[in-house]
Amino acid sequence: MNNMFANRMANAHKSFIREILKVTADPKVISFAGGLPNPQLFPVKDLADATAKVLAEDGENVLQYSTTEGYLPLRQYIAERYSKRKGLEVDPDEILITNGSQQGLDLIGKVFLNAGDRIVLERPGYLGAIQAFSLYEPVFEPVPLLEDGIDTALLEEALNGNEIKLFHTVVNFQNPSGITYSKQKRLDLAGIFKDHSTILLEDDPYGELRFAGQDLPSMRSYLHDNVILLGSFSKIVAPGLRLGWICATTDVIERIIIAKQASDLHSNYFSQRIVCQYLADHDIDEHILKIREVYKNQRDLMISSIEKHFPEEVEFTRPEGGMFLWVTLPESISAIRLFDLAGGEDVAFVPGSAFYVDEGGRNTLRLNFSNSDGGQIEEGIERLAKVIKELLAANK
Amino acid sequence: MNNMFANRMANAHKSFIREILKVTADPKVISFAGGLPNPQLFPVKDLADATAKVLAEDGENVLQYSTTEGYLPLRQYIAERYSKRKGLEVDPDEILITNGSQQGLDLIGKVFLNAGDRIVLERPGYLGAIQAFSLYEPVFEPVPLLEDGIDTALLEEALNGNEIKLFHTVVNFQNPSGITYSKQKRLDLAGIFKDHSTILLEDDPYGELRFAGQDLPSMRSYLHDNVILLGSFSKIVAPGLRLGWICATTDVIERIIIAKQASDLHSNYFSQRIVCQYLADHDIDEHILKIREVYKNQRDLMISSIEKHFPEEVEFTRPEGGMFLWVTLPESISAIRLFDLAGGEDVAFVPGSAFYVDEGGRNTLRLNFSNSDGGQIEEGIERLAKVIKELLAANK
Repeated sequence: MNNMFANRMANAHKSFIREILKVTADPKVISFAGGLPNPQLFPVKDLADATAKVLAEDGENVLQYSTTEGYLPLRQYIAERYSKRKGLEVDPDEILITNGSQQGLDLIGKVFLNAGDRIVLERPGYLGAIQAFSLYEPVFEPVPLLEDGIDTALLEEALNGNEIKLFHTVVNFQNPSGITYSKQKRLDLAGIFKDHSTILLEDDPYGELRFAGQDLPSMRSYLHDNVILLGSFSKIVAPGLRLGWICATTDVIERIIIAKQASDLHSNYFSQRIVCQYLADHDIDEHILKIREVYKNQRDLMISSIEKHFPEEVEFTRPEGGMFLWVTLPESISAIRLFDLAGGEDVAFVPGSAFYVDEGGRNTLRLNFSNSDGGQIEEGIERLAKVIKELLAANK
Repeated sequence: MNNMFANRMANAHKSFIREILKVTADPKVISFAGGLPNPQLFPVKDLADATAKVLAEDGENVLQYSTTEGYLPLRQYIAERYSKRKGLEVDPDEILITNGSQQGLDLIGKVFLNAGDRIVLERPGYLGAIQAFSLYEPVFEPVPLLEDGIDTALLEEALNGNEIKLFHTVVNFQNPSGITYSKQKRLDLAGIFKDHSTILLEDDPYGELRFAGQDLPSMRSYLHDNVILLGSFSKIVAPGLRLGWICATTDVIERIIIAKQASDLHSNYFSQRIVCQYLADHDIDEHILKIREVYKNQRDLMISSIEKHFPEEVEFTRPEGGMFLWVTLPESISAIRLFDLAGGEDVAFVPGSAFYVDEGGRNTLRLNFSNSDGGQIEEGIERLAKVIKELLAANK
C-alpha cells in the first residue's frame, strides 16, 4: 500500500522523543528525556471524588455526545481565569476545548495553512508544533532565540521578506530552551506585529508554572485580534485527560469548530465534566503552588548538580518556570554521540537537533527536571558529566 | 482575518445535523434528528466502579501521558473480539485507538488523501465521512445504494474509470439509510476489489447492534490487506468517552501513528483504562443484548406507527439493526419544506439532502429511533404524518 499514501506523509517522521521514550522504558535508566509532569503531583483523590460526583449526579449526560466547542461552564472558567490572572477580557465563545494543546496546533494548521505557506518558528522550536504543522506542508523559517526571547531584528527581516502566515512562540519557559521572553521583548514584538497581518500563535502550556521572577503579560493584551492563545490542563491537572483549549476571536473559533467537528466531533465530554467539577470543588491555585514548589526544588537541584559536576565549558539556561533546561556543549561535541555513550551509563536526554528544522543544534541538548526525584537528578547529572568529560578529553 | 484561512476551509460547512440539534434543544420538540444512543442504556454504575478501581489501583499512571497507538490490553481485547465475533485474525499491533471513529475518518484522510484524489461514497452517504474527507479536498464519486447494498455495476464503472483511492462503506445498518449489505453483495464486492488497489474502508460503528437476521462477514475476511476497519465503543458503551479504533495492516498503522501523534499525541488514556477495566469486569455481550432488545422495540414501534399513520405512497426501510430508518416521500414533496412545517408541530428529523454530495435526496429523510421512548415515537410519527398528509393534499 506504500504508493497509496498522501504526499504530506513524506514530510512526517516519528518523533525522536517518543522513540527515546521506548528506550527509556528500562527502569534502571535515569531519563531526563521525556516531557512528563511529576505524577506524584496529580490530584488523584480529588479527581476520583469529582468523577464519582458527576457520574452519580448526571451520569447519563456526562457519558453522552456533546457540543463541538466544549462544555460551557468549563469555557466560562477558562475565560474568567484569563481575566483574573492576566487581565485579559475573554468571552467563553472565544474558547474551544481541544484534546490537549497538541490538537490546538493541528486545528490551527488545518484551518490556516496551505501548502507552501510560510511559518516562523523559534530556533530551537517546539517539536510538537513542528510535527503538527509539517503535515500541512508549510515552509519553515526558523528565527533564533536569544536569552530574553526571539531575535527581533531577524524576525522583522523575515516578516518584511516573504509573507508570513503565522509565528509560533512559547513566551513562557519555552520548550525546549527554558527561556522566557522579557517584558521589553514582548513590547518590541507587539510593536512589530502591529504592522503585519501575521498570526501570533502564543502557545502557553507552562505559563502557570512560574517559580521565580514576575508573571508577564500575554501577547493578547497588546495585540488582541492577531493573537491565538493555546492553553492546557496537562501540566496543572493531569495530561492523561487530554484537555487543552484554543482562545481566539469568534470568527476564528467558528472556523475551528468546523475543523474540530470533522476531526473528532468533540473532546472527551466525561473528562471535561470531571475537570470542571474538580475546579469547582478545589482551590487550583493552592494545587499549582505545590507544583511550583516541587519543580523549583527539582530545577535548583539540577542546576546545583550541573554546577558541581559539568565541565566549565558547558553552558546552560536557568529557567524561571516550566519543566526543561537547555545545555550547550563545546562545539566539538555532538549531542547524538553523547546520547549514544550516555546510554551505556543508563542516563538519557533529548539531543537538541530534534528541535531544529535545519541542521543546527548538534552540540545542544534538552534536560527535563519535572519527572525525576532528587536522587535521580543528582545521580543522572553525575553520570552525564562523566561522559561529557570523556568526550572532551578524547577531543583534545 | 477572513483572507487568512486555508483554501480547504472553503469546502467545509457546519453540519446541518448539529445545527438541527440546536433547534431541537427545546424540550417540547420530539426529535428523530440526532444520532444519539439511548442514554438510559449507558452502564453508569459499572463505569463508576471501573473508574474508582483504576484510580485507586493505578491513579498516577492512568492520569499520565501514554503511547500514541493506545493501551495495549485494550488493543488486545479488540483484536480478540474480532476473532471471537467475526473469525478475523487480528494482531493488537493492527489496532490504533482513536477519539471515536470520527477521528478514524480524519486520520485516514490525513494519511491517504491528496487534493483531487477520487473517493467513492455511498449515495446517500455518512455525513461524518463527507465532513472529514472534504477537508482533504478530494473528488467525491457517489454510487447509489440499492436495497441490499451498493449498486455494484455502477461501482465497477467508477473503479474502471478514474483511479479511485478509497471506497467508504457502512455495510451494517448504514447511516443514514439503515440498509445492510447482503452476503451475496459482500461476495460480489470482494470479487470486484480483488482487481483494484482501491482501499475499502469498512466503517462499522453499528455492527454489534443487530436485532434481526444473521450476522454477516466483515469485508476483511475476503480482502485482508485492502481493507481498513473502523470500530467504536460509542454505541456499545458510551459516546462521551470518545473511544474508537482503526484496524489495518501494520504498515498502514505505522503511518497513522505518525499522523495521530501530530494530531493529538494520543487518545484520552484515563478513558481507555476505564473502558478496559469495565470490559474485564463485566459481560459486554449481556449488555449488548439489552441494547439490541430496546432498540428492536423502538424500531418495531416506529415501523408500526409509520404503517398506521403515514400515507401509503411513503416508502421506508426496515433496518435489521442500528439506529436509523430512511423514508422516501413522493417525488413532489421536499423534505426541507416538510422539516420547516414539522417544526410547527414540534417534531424534527434530518432532511435526506444532507447525506448527498450532489443535488439528490430532496424527497428523503432520516429518522432516528434509538433516542426516543415509546410514547415519543408514537406521538412524533403521528405529528409527522399529519404534516405529510397536508403537503400531499396541497400538491394535488
